[in-house]
Amino acid sequence: MKEHKIGIIMNGVTGRMGTNQHLARSMMAIIKEGGLKISPGEVIVPQPILVGRNEHKLRALAAEHGLTRYTTDLDACLSDPAYPVYFDAQLTNLRVEAVRKAIAAGKAVYCEKPVADTLADALTLCREAEAAQVKNGVVQDKLFLPGLLKLKYLLDTNFFGRVLSVRGEFGYWVFDGKSQPCQRPSWNYKKEEGGSIIVDMFCHWRYVIDNLFGPIKSLSCLGARHIDRRVDETGQEYACTADDAAYGTFELASGVICHFNSSWAVRVRRDDLLTLQVDGTQGSAVAGLRDCVIQHDSMTPRPVWNPDVDSPIDFYAGWTRMPNNKIYDNAFKVQWELFLKHVVCDTPFPWNLREGAKGVQLAELALQSWANRRWVEVPPLEI
Amino acid sequence: MKEHKIGIIMNGVTGRMGTNQHLARSMMAIIKEGGLKISPGEVIVPQPILVGRNEHKLRALAAEHGLTRYTTDLDACLSDPAYPVYFDAQLTNLRVEAVRKAIAAGKAVYCEKPVADTLADALTLCREAEAAQVKNGVVQDKLFLPGLLKLKYLLDTNFFGRVLSVRGEFGYWVFDGKSQPCQRPSWNYKKEEGGSIIVDMFCHWRYVIDNLFGPIKSLSCLGARHIDRRVDETGQEYACTADDAAYGTFELASGVICHFNSSWAVRVRRDDLLTLQVDGTQGSAVAGLRDCVIQHDSMTPRPVWNPDVDSPIDFYAGWTRMPNNKIYDNAFKVQWELFLKHVVCDTPFPWNLREGAKGVQLAELALQSWANRRWVEVPPLEI
Amino acid sequence: MKEHKIGIIMNGVTGRMGTNQHLARSMMAIIKEGGLKISPGEVIVPQPILVGRNEHKLRALAAEHGLTRYTTDLDACLSDPAYPVYFDAQLTNLRVEAVRKAIAAGKAVYCEKPVADTLADALTLCREAEAAQVKNGVVQDKLFLPGLLKLKYLLDTNFFGRVLSVRGEFGYWVFDGKSQPCQRPSWNYKKEEGGSIIVDMFCHWRYVIDNLFGPIKSLSCLGARHIDRRVDETGQEYACTADDAAYGTFELASGVICHFNSSWAVRVRRDDLLTLQVDGTQGSAVAGLRDCVIQHDSMTPRPVWNPDVDSPIDFYAGWTRMPNNKIYDNAFKVQWELFLKHVVCDTPFPWNLREGAKGVQLAELALQSWANRRWVEVPPLEI
Amino acid sequence: MKEHKIGIIMNGVTGRMGTNQHLARSMMAIIKEGGLKISPGEVIVPQPILVGRNEHKLRALAAEHGLTRYTTDLDACLSDPAYPVYFDAQLTNLRVEAVRKAIAAGKAVYCEKPVADTLADALTLCREAEAAQVKNGVVQDKLFLPGLLKLKYLLDTNFFGRVLSVRGEFGYWVFDGKSQPCQRPSWNYKKEEGGSIIVDMFCHWRYVIDNLFGPIKSLSCLGARHIDRRVDETGQEYACTADDAAYGTFELASGVICHFNSSWAVRVRRDDLLTLQVDGTQGSAVAGLRDCVIQHDSMTPRPVWNPDVDSPIDFYAGWTRMPNNKIYDNAFKVQWELFLKHVVCDTPFPWNLREGAKGVQLAELALQSWANRRWVEVPPLEI
Repeated sequence: MKEHKIGIIMNGVTGRMGTNQHLARSMMAIIKEGGLKISPGEVIVPQPILVGRNEHKLRALAAEHGLTRYTTDLDACLSDPAYPVYFDAQLTNLRVEAVRKAIAAGKAVYCEKPVADTLADALTLCREAEAAQVKNGVVQDKLFLPGLLKLKYLLDTNFFGRVLSVRGEFGYWVFDGKSQPCQRPSWNYKKEEGGSIIVDMFCHWRYVIDNLFGPIKSLSCLGARHIDRRVDETGQEYACTADDAAYGTFELASGVICHFNSSWAVRVRRDDLLTLQVDGTQGSAVAGLRDCVIQHDSMTPRPVWNPDVDSPIDFYAGWTRMPNNKIYDNAFKVQWELFLKHVVCDTPFPWNLREGAKGVQLAELALQSWANRRWVEVPPLEI
Repeated sequence: MKEHKIGIIMNGVTGRMGTNQHLARSMMAIIKEGGLKISPGEVIVPQPILVGRNEHKLRALAAEHGLTRYTTDLDACLSDPAYPVYFDAQLTNLRVEAVRKAIAAGKAVYCEKPVADTLADALTLCREAEAAQVKNGVVQDKLFLPGLLKLKYLLDTNFFGRVLSVRGEFGYWVFDGKSQPCQRPSWNYKKEEGGSIIVDMFCHWRYVIDNLFGPIKSLSCLGARHIDRRVDETGQEYACTADDAAYGTFELASGVICHFNSSWAVRVRRDDLLTLQVDGTQGSAVAGLRDCVIQHDSMTPRPVWNPDVDSPIDFYAGWTRMPNNKIYDNAFKVQWELFLKHVVCDTPFPWNLREGAKGVQLAELALQSWANRRWVEVPPLEI
Repeated sequence: MKEHKIGIIMNGVTGRMGTNQHLARSMMAIIKEGGLKISPGEVIVPQPILVGRNEHKLRALAAEHGLTRYTTDLDACLSDPAYPVYFDAQLTNLRVEAVRKAIAAGKAVYCEKPVADTLADALTLCREAEAAQVKNGVVQDKLFLPGLLKLKYLLDTNFFGRVLSVRGEFGYWVFDGKSQPCQRPSWNYKKEEGGSIIVDMFCHWRYVIDNLFGPIKSLSCLGARHIDRRVDETGQEYACTADDAAYGTFELASGVICHFNSSWAVRVRRDDLLTLQVDGTQGSAVAGLRDCVIQHDSMTPRPVWNPDVDSPIDFYAGWTRMPNNKIYDNAFKVQWELFLKHVVCDTPFPWNLREGAKGVQLAELALQSWANRRWVEVPPLEI
Repeated sequence: MKEHKIGIIMNGVTGRMGTNQHLARSMMAIIKEGGLKISPGEVIVPQPILVGRNEHKLRALAAEHGLTRYTTDLDACLSDPAYPVYFDAQLTNLRVEAVRKAIAAGKAVYCEKPVADTLADALTLCREAEAAQVKNGVVQDKLFLPGLLKLKYLLDTNFFGRVLSVRGEFGYWVFDGKSQPCQRPSWNYKKEEGGSIIVDMFCHWRYVIDNLFGPIKSLSCLGARHIDRRVDETGQEYACTADDAAYGTFELASGVICHFNSSWAVRVRRDDLLTLQVDGTQGSAVAGLRDCVIQHDSMTPRPVWNPDVDSPIDFYAGWTRMPNNKIYDNAFKVQWELFLKHVVCDTPFPWNLREGAKGVQLAELALQSWANRRWVEVPPLEI
């Protein structure tokens, strides 16, 4: 078996998401499987080095995962040709500077989203990466969730006929910390610390919509701060300053209309934390994170409006659940594998920094629409 | 038993809604119960006369319901003091003229919605009715549906704590007439014949929101025509010209945000044809036409975002259905009884022509918001 | 990581409760978790020494749990400054003397309940501990059961409106040893050996009621000895002399009435071995050991008394189960951790010897009420 | 077929209970069945005359049931030998005078409960009826409910072994009239109008306990007024003055202890509105109004107290429902038939005025126990 050993700088994976999804369930999982098979006789074997600012944490994390390589010296790493790939999962406001250095050092770069705090910065990254001709990618994990892969299957096989509209509902009840602890970090609810459901989620909506349903033409967005005061991790009550709900409508170039709610102040009476309902001329589907139910034209009931009697139709009964015809791997790992193949074998990888910049753009435009109380067009990126 | 006999001119009840809801399930039902009891020894006994343009239809309808009085001569009816009440369920474009005559004749007037095609006309009706000091009312049937009455109970007993947001979803799949017949009349899909889901539904949203959640401050609306071609009652295919879906967002004076979808091109994966989800600090509810389910703070699950495994939470399981602690009468009949008591006993009846005009106003503003692609404010009525 | 090592004398943990709950599931569990975290960089690491009268048993128990320290010489232990904490789970009649010695030796003391056989003795312990200014605590495990914590959540978030009444039902069928072995020790049924369900359970009811619903003003109690003869561990039949059931009613200072049954001669047709039903103006709840179901005002059915037909209402259906929004640790361990933090970090620990004495007081008053066949007032403790 | 026609004066059956249970479901039902068969060739055919104070109501009621005989002149009726039976379902405070007249007129008398407002009055009735040697009876309907008949079956067949204790729970949530109408009449909550759950229910508990479990030796009772203010039938808020809950404990001569809750301020988490749990050495049962579940010794689980894990026992699962091996007739009708046979055929009828007086006695003693805060003995009636 031929092994393509490939050194990977993993910067900022001491956080919850970085540790769980990128290190444990992606990188270490690939290593435990003996590497990523790319042909009957060849595997890619990643060789990660952990980079961060807290040596104590890095040592513990490395030990926990049986790794020996870690460092606080990013620059040294970047100048080491043993590591051709740079991955960044730092706090957003630290990302741009580090990625630029990696590009300058000729590394292939792979980043968490949002790639930058501003569209201008995101575009700078694109320009520099393209000028340097380094391979690049951005995490777009939701595309690889089983539920969305099932939805993609329906789109690819033309189940829907012509798609008419998409309803997205995301969110759940985040406790305010008074009666029970808040299950999200307090900075999420503070504008001054980068909090905002719009900033957080619209990056996702951009690539989900673009990839599944086509390019967005224009949008209207209303943000809201439903919960005014919360209690933080230390038990202190504070005033929330960031939006915790966003009511967005998107018009696609194709005429499809997407209506997306995102809220941390909603109780869930639907199939999952995120659901996408797609209605088409020939059928409809509701996808969650892992499942997808469908209703074909031939299954569609014909309700009669008669509120004098209980509805003779159980509106949930006319939907059927798609089977799991394959084993779905972790969404982050799937994308990591595609990126590693892209680096080693030059296979296509469309989820690049340009696509990442589009997510930042959409969040910026949403905030602008909210402020100006009107629809805004989505211009092409000017790179 | 003292009987208050009261003559009622019923104009335009040969249509489906007029016949079923107003004549059969309201008027005839009251008569069959021996009249409407207003005190231990007193009843109001309605004595309807059917008015319309097609004598043949009127005769058949009267016969079917065991009535003897019908006529095509509205003017004669209006000049007959035996009929102090005028009810109008004609096509909207015929309504204004007839109601004005009835007002001029000093009748108490009760109308289907929308009261007029334009706000200007609706305001004219208000002005004339108020100047003539005749009692007046507009059908707002949804307020009296069991599901919405249960929601009102929750609001009145402060179940929600502070209400944060309301999600309304209305609609179902209306077949296009090709594979199976369209289950709504074709004029609904023709702008030139008064069709438009915005015109049809926003009248309802106005009184539902105003009465349950408080006054609307501003709104944004996007209309859509998802289905371009349909087949009419005669088997002819035609081009649709009216909107068949509306994506509306309302800001209330209280800060509550209402997000309402209305569509005739959506398949139903929810509890009912119309659902209202109300989220509040202390609890949430989802009301349908007849049922209402609730989730109190203490029942609220605490989801963890982990798409690697199927959700350990069944998001439907944490909701409970409110009991039917009373027998719910037909919503139209309930409002008819309140109007008859208003006429005979002078009890309050807040659902008057002014309130009806507000519904027309909201539809007009929604069309304006759609055209101008921006939020519009809801000004007070200028009467 | 800074480790606060703390020596703990565990006296009398060779019994079932002592071994399972205090040694295995509390002390050893804390040790296995690497100690009790009190700050990001600090843990408390308990270092237990087992004390008892039977060296053989102690050696076996220590070996089983991987401990090396045990002794039959309590006095030596008490004079060893390496052990600042004394825990007592001996038979009640041995407790007072040992705890007094520990107090005299300046130890922090933590005791099983009842703290003493008589109120006078319990008060002596309070006085001496307070005079010696040693930290002290009493096991009140039921407060930390998941079911009661859920009930506390409902009380804290004002789910009930005004609480009206509480029904407590405790007990199960204890076989008499004839057809199948008795599942409780025979001394429980012998007054002369300290047996009595009143003495056993009223300690619990005192802290449960005081902590959840407020101070008890007066009580009435009827004891009973339902089963007269049982068969002991050796197969000998004996005459029972202690009460095996208690029917108690408590009036709280707040006006709430608590009606508590306790019985070892009852078959269980309820949700759990212990259930507390709380009825309030706005809602009700029934808590068991781990679960809690609720019924809000809006869910409350409206029964009609009609025994001619089967009830159209399923009275269990209108209740919903609260979710497990946190992982519930062993109740004894939770309280141990709070006591260790109290000793090391001086955090509050309200469940002290005074509170333990109140439990003994309630049992004494219950016996008095039974003997005198009347209500008795609950006076403040005279310390 | 020989017909024993028997005239029955029915006084005060215009109320809900009188009309439904005594007139419609008992008297008219017997008549519709062609009379009460007492031998293969003989039937008793009741011939009722309705007596009351409101002629209008009487006429309507008679017409509704196809009766022709009604009158407001009780005295005339009593002097008419065509009516040998007098039945009284008037308001309690009118009963004594009328029954005394009927006794004086030599009628067999049958009364609703309570037979009188005071024990003294009830004893007067006994004395006069016994002196006059007229047959007499009191309604004790609960004894003839299917659920209690099943319980009687278990007692008669010695299912329980020795009975140890009985737990009675009666009640449900009576709305206060604010959020939804109160489902009981307002006088129930006004002491000055005869309201009191103790007065209402203890009459029932007396005959239920005496007949099923044996004579009551002593009792302790605590009353409560949980809900202070309610809204009456006219929408007026009022201050409640009567007890709406009673916590009673009874010692029987046999040593059995009965613990009975009665409350109109409790939400129902049990099998029925009234449940009686009987525990005996060989088995237990829980009877509701119509059903009865049992758990034999051999079915009794052996719970282990381990609140660290969810109980492995479903405590409801170990009970089984008794079959309906006969058709259960209306409880009131069953007793009416026994009384009619008693009058015509001289069969035994133990539920006489003495037994009725015992119910009044128990209520009086319960109020006395509450006032004096102690147990009271139940003396034999002094007639």
